[in-house]
Amino acid sequence: MSIHHQIIALDVMGGDFGPEVVIPAAALALDDMSGKISYIFFGDENRIKPLLGKYKVLEGISEIHHTSGIVTNDEKPSVAIRRKDTSLRLAIEAVKEGRAQSIVSAGNTGALMATAKLVLRCLPGIKRPALASVLPTRQGDTVMLDLGANLVCDAQMLVQFAVLGSVYARVVKGIDTPRVGILNVGSEDMKGPDLVREAASILTNIVFPGDYYGFVEGDDLAEGLVDVVVTDGFTGNIALKVAEGVSKLTSHYMKEAFLSSLPAKMGAVLAGCALKKVKKRMDPRYYNGGMFLGLDGICVKSHGGMDVYGVSRAILVAAHLVEQGYNSEVAHEIALVMNQQSNGIEPEGVIA
Amino acid sequence: MSIHHQIIALDVMGGDFGPEVVIPAAALALDDMSGKISYIFFGDENRIKPLLGKYKVLEGISEIHHTSGIVTNDEKPSVAIRRKDTSLRLAIEAVKEGRAQSIVSAGNTGALMATAKLVLRCLPGIKRPALASVLPTRQGDTVMLDLGANLVCDAQMLVQFAVLGSVYARVVKGIDTPRVGILNVGSEDMKGPDLVREAASILTNIVFPGDYYGFVEGDDLAEGLVDVVVTDGFTGNIALKVAEGVSKLTSHYMKEAFLSSLPAKMGAVLAGCALKKVKKRMDPRYYNGGMFLGLDGICVKSHGGMDVYGVSRAILVAAHLVEQGYNSEVAHEIALVMNQQSNGIEPEGVIA
Repeated sequence: MSIHHQIIALDVMGGDFGPEVVIPAAALALDDMSGKISYIFFGDENRIKPLLGKYKVLEGISEIHHTSGIVTNDEKPSVAIRRKDTSLRLAIEAVKEGRAQSIVSAGNTGALMATAKLVLRCLPGIKRPALASVLPTRQGDTVMLDLGANLVCDAQMLVQFAVLGSVYARVVKGIDTPRVGILNVGSEDMKGPDLVREAASILTNIVFPGDYYGFVEGDDLAEGLVDVVVTDGFTGNIALKVAEGVSKLTSHYMKEAFLSSLPAKMGAVLAGCALKKVKKRMDPRYYNGGMFLGLDGICVKSHGGMDVYGVSRAILVAAHLVEQGYNSEVAHEIALVMNQQSNGIEPEGVIA
Repeated sequence: MSIHHQIIALDVMGGDFGPEVVIPAAALALDDMSGKISYIFFGDENRIKPLLGKYKVLEGISEIHHTSGIVTNDEKPSVAIRRKDTSLRLAIEAVKEGRAQSIVSAGNTGALMATAKLVLRCLPGIKRPALASVLPTRQGDTVMLDLGANLVCDAQMLVQFAVLGSVYARVVKGIDTPRVGILNVGSEDMKGPDLVREAASILTNIVFPGDYYGFVEGDDLAEGLVDVVVTDGFTGNIALKVAEGVSKLTSHYMKEAFLSSLPAKMGAVLAGCALKKVKKRMDPRYYNGGMFLGLDGICVKSHGGMDVYGVSRAILVAAHLVEQGYNSEVAHEIALVMNQQSNGIEPEGVIA
């Protein structure tokens, strides 16, 4: 099931820059989705209106929902979820009430997660939503989850993350039989903690019989051995940030090296074009847009410090999830998995 | 307490290449430690003798202990620990019996760990030994543990790892007050799973009062924010391998970029010298040598695929741990910590 026209609820007050970045980003996203999306902007209309005047492409497809409350970056989620007048809360409610098909925010991650879970609830059968993102690898890209929404997981949660990720790779990326792997300390079956081996056993025997890839190690992530990498939120968050850190450190070393001598500087100028391509391939802005998968509604988080291009990428992530009918596909497959697990029967490869 | 002359037990049969790499590595390590170390080579004397003839520097400081059994890379640790004739086992026993002060092996990690634990046992008060290694960062280097010896940890184990790492940074690296951090999903006190927060509370209030750094995130690792990074073996192993993977992927992209056009190729030639320095700074061979800290004896693991230079680095890791009297320092500090914890008293900064 795909949706031809959709409305995106944008929390324009979240993030480090607010409407001054989110509104231009909404305009930029139309380059890819013109005619397919409309917006409701949730936030301070005194700041939104003048900006809208600058972007003719937003004319006729934008509605402003004035809100007075703002969730700050350091606000505790337990406090934020009780406030009903915030741009974050009201944007999520628009999805709950069917006035929008997705919500995008660059605001406080914990508050967004907690409020989205409270208002939208999980899809039937899902224990907890997972935070997922797409990461660059040597062979294209890979979806990884959980990245920090659930620090401690049980085997059943890892199995559900595998289904959530697999449906993403199938319906949004168009991969017929996604390769799904669980992150572990070795690739052999007997390696790793009990809960990881238990999840692997359920995936092998019940959920993806014949099609489950197996365990992947930390270095397989950048290699892109699989289309979906499943792990708990503690390990996933740390793995993602380690990757960012090493990537930044390498760039820093390279810059230092190219500035270290006159020949090196000349070399950098000559190789400039090629080096720009490397930078583009690993551009964190391109990969911006964390998806809370498993909620009964599409909710996407942009990194708070992103620029216009970065936020536009997060908006496109939400738009593609809605366009491809991600949630209805996932609800269908989760129901099948639950049925198979409770019956203990061998399914006929319905989840591929 | 420092030791002026020491004997290293070398398991020359371990690793992908055996004596043909380990013996030249032993010779190379003398460049840094000549006059300070002697060797006992454990392995097949028919392979060792001809090699020794080639390295005059090893004359007079080398003893051969002929062994017939070899632990293969795919042998299960539970099987390997029952075999008493292997080079790995007999080299470890030399440390137990005081004929050597340390053992270095490039062999099967699981077998080495299990046998070393069985033969050497843990230092008094230590629950489980940890696998530690030194990693490159923007600000020098950092010791990280555990890297895979203990997949599931409790708070007490993390606290002990912090002491093991802190003593390493102090006595081997010469840092007066090492900054110790626990790896977590955020730097704020309330972030993370219970066990991580419990360990942090013990470190703050009892073990390093006034000197405990706090939580560090995945990207702080490459930044080198702290001298010691503490985590469980599951997360540590994955973080280390993610870092290796991203580093390799970046090199791959760079190589591709420099070969992509004639100007880029010329640029690479001009910048060649500077680029070599970057490569050297991140050379995994330089950082080779995993230390099993917490055992009652020094045991170091070289990566199995390392070349002569790489293995020589692992030998030097063992030599420095012995030279600086790491184990007696750590035994002293662990006893103090246990005493403080059982008394619940505020110590006077004895562990810094």
